[in-house]
Amino acid sequence: MAEKKGMEALEIGCVERMSKTISEADVYAFAGITGDFYGVHVDEEFARKTRYGTRIAHGALLVGFISTVMGKMAAKIPPPGGVSYRYDVKFVAPVKFGDTVTTELKVAEKNMERREIISQITSTNQRGEKVLEGKTTLKVI
Amino acid sequence: MAEKKGMEALEIGCVERMSKTISEADVYAFAGITGDFYGVHVDEEFARKTRYGTRIAHGALLVGFISTVMGKMAAKIPPPGGVSYRYDVKFVAPVKFGDTVTTELKVAEKNMERREIISQITSTNQRGEKVLEGKTTLKVI
Amino acid sequence: MAEKKGMEALEIGCVERMSKTISEADVYAFAGITGDFYGVHVDEEFARKTRYGTRIAHGALLVGFISTVMGKMAAKIPPPGGVSYRYDVKFVAPVKFGDTVTTELKVAEKNMERREIISQITSTNQRGEKVLEGKTTLKVI
Amino acid sequence: MAEKKGMEALEIGCVERMSKTISEADVYAFAGITGDFYGVHVDEEFARKTRYGTRIAHGALLVGFISTVMGKMAAKIPPPGGVSYRYDVKFVAPVKFGDTVTTELKVAEKNMERREIISQITSTNQRGEKVLEGKTTLKVI
Repeated sequence: MAEKKGMEALEIGCVERMSKTISEADVYAFAGITGDFYGVHVDEEFARKTRYGTRIAHGALLVGFISTVMGKMAAKIPPPGGVSYRYDVKFVAPVKFGDTVTTELKVAEKNMERREIISQITSTNQRGEKVLEGKTTLKVI
Repeated sequence: MAEKKGMEALEIGCVERMSKTISEADVYAFAGITGDFYGVHVDEEFARKTRYGTRIAHGALLVGFISTVMGKMAAKIPPPGGVSYRYDVKFVAPVKFGDTVTTELKVAEKNMERREIISQITSTNQRGEKVLEGKTTLKVI
Repeated sequence: MAEKKGMEALEIGCVERMSKTISEADVYAFAGITGDFYGVHVDEEFARKTRYGTRIAHGALLVGFISTVMGKMAAKIPPPGGVSYRYDVKFVAPVKFGDTVTTELKVAEKNMERREIISQITSTNQRGEKVLEGKTTLKVI
Repeated sequence: MAEKKGMEALEIGCVERMSKTISEADVYAFAGITGDFYGVHVDEEFARKTRYGTRIAHGALLVGFISTVMGKMAAKIPPPGGVSYRYDVKFVAPVKFGDTVTTELKVAEKNMERREIISQITSTNQRGEKVLEGKTTLKVI
């Protein structure tokens, strides 16, 4: 049973992660793709007057890293694999240029009927501070 | 009262949107920033064998457009404005290269104490089909 | 013995690969980083008059994919992992925009004293034609 | 005789070179095209624990500069010019962000029958230290 095999490729407790030091180039390229040129991301003068004191990464960029870790999980499922179905995330601390973000997903729940694998997400910076938390659903296709 | 003014800048029912035709270059650049090279996004041979029949955009790229529309909303709030605090989104249909995605946010709820503005999100393609739905929270800073 | 452990993480015969459909955006970005604007890569009129009949990817871009697969191998070695030490590659067929390249490395030899892991490289297109062949050395650091 | 003319355009001893200061943006864009997000290139925390002490450029990026210098050589050959046929390179020292790399090719040998021009490659940093050495073959097309 192919479906079952797909769902079984990822057991509860399974962890995947990735780390990247966030560069100004990342944030600018992200702004360039999405069009989000809000001052707190690309205007240092504006950002200086906020409580962050400097430009910060888009929260949605951090969601992009979740996508990458989901891709790693999906790659463990026999083809055609799986795709992201839901993201529910909160941004709990800012990410500044030069911060290193580790994005970790841990399989928390599986719904065999709906063919969904739900993971807890925790993203932290280089000081171990949580910058994002939430959960995400991978749909086995 | 600065805070109140910030919260009042966006009334319930207020709508913001943006549209972009998704290019292969967008998806490839997004893969490039995030590291998500999962086959369904960058490998046409792999993607052909999925039910999509071709490469599709990362769902997280669509989240990027939400960020842009949030930025438009935040720009209406007197400085220092606001930032994305939460995204809760579902991907309900695939976005292929060449599709035009319209991302629309509509203010649905305001929490004065927590200084949060919650919007409904609806993203549609050029045929009016919904590709993403959810809600998002803007925090007035 | 840490060194031995590093060397043992990759056994002879171990295979890693990646696939990507080569876009015009890839080739142009590669030209942009390296400065290689030679006509066969970025000038369709020039390229049309060559035996390729159209623009082709830089061979060095294909070397970049070897680096990625090497990175996957290095990631299997306990930190601090390994780095690429040598590439010896031949380009045996052109890669056109839209071709899907699969880059495969197979561990062929290990030199415990020099802490080197040598792999055979074979890159093929979507028709199974070989586009690159050679060998590469990963140094365990 | 067109072929001979092509082969004669580059004499033994002929030198071509280029220099570029390697930026974080270069390395990140290279990771973005190839998918090589190995920690030593994009994760400062990981890289700090290696003997390099900080993030370093992908060796394959340096191969890209060889491609550029090859393109300069090929541009001296009457159209349709030539293409890179072989790279055989060793990475002998790391390149850190901010280092200036000079890539130099010197024609060492010509094989008229195979229509191949073989050059010695030497890449050095701003302190004159060799970072890459090897040889490369240009095929006159």
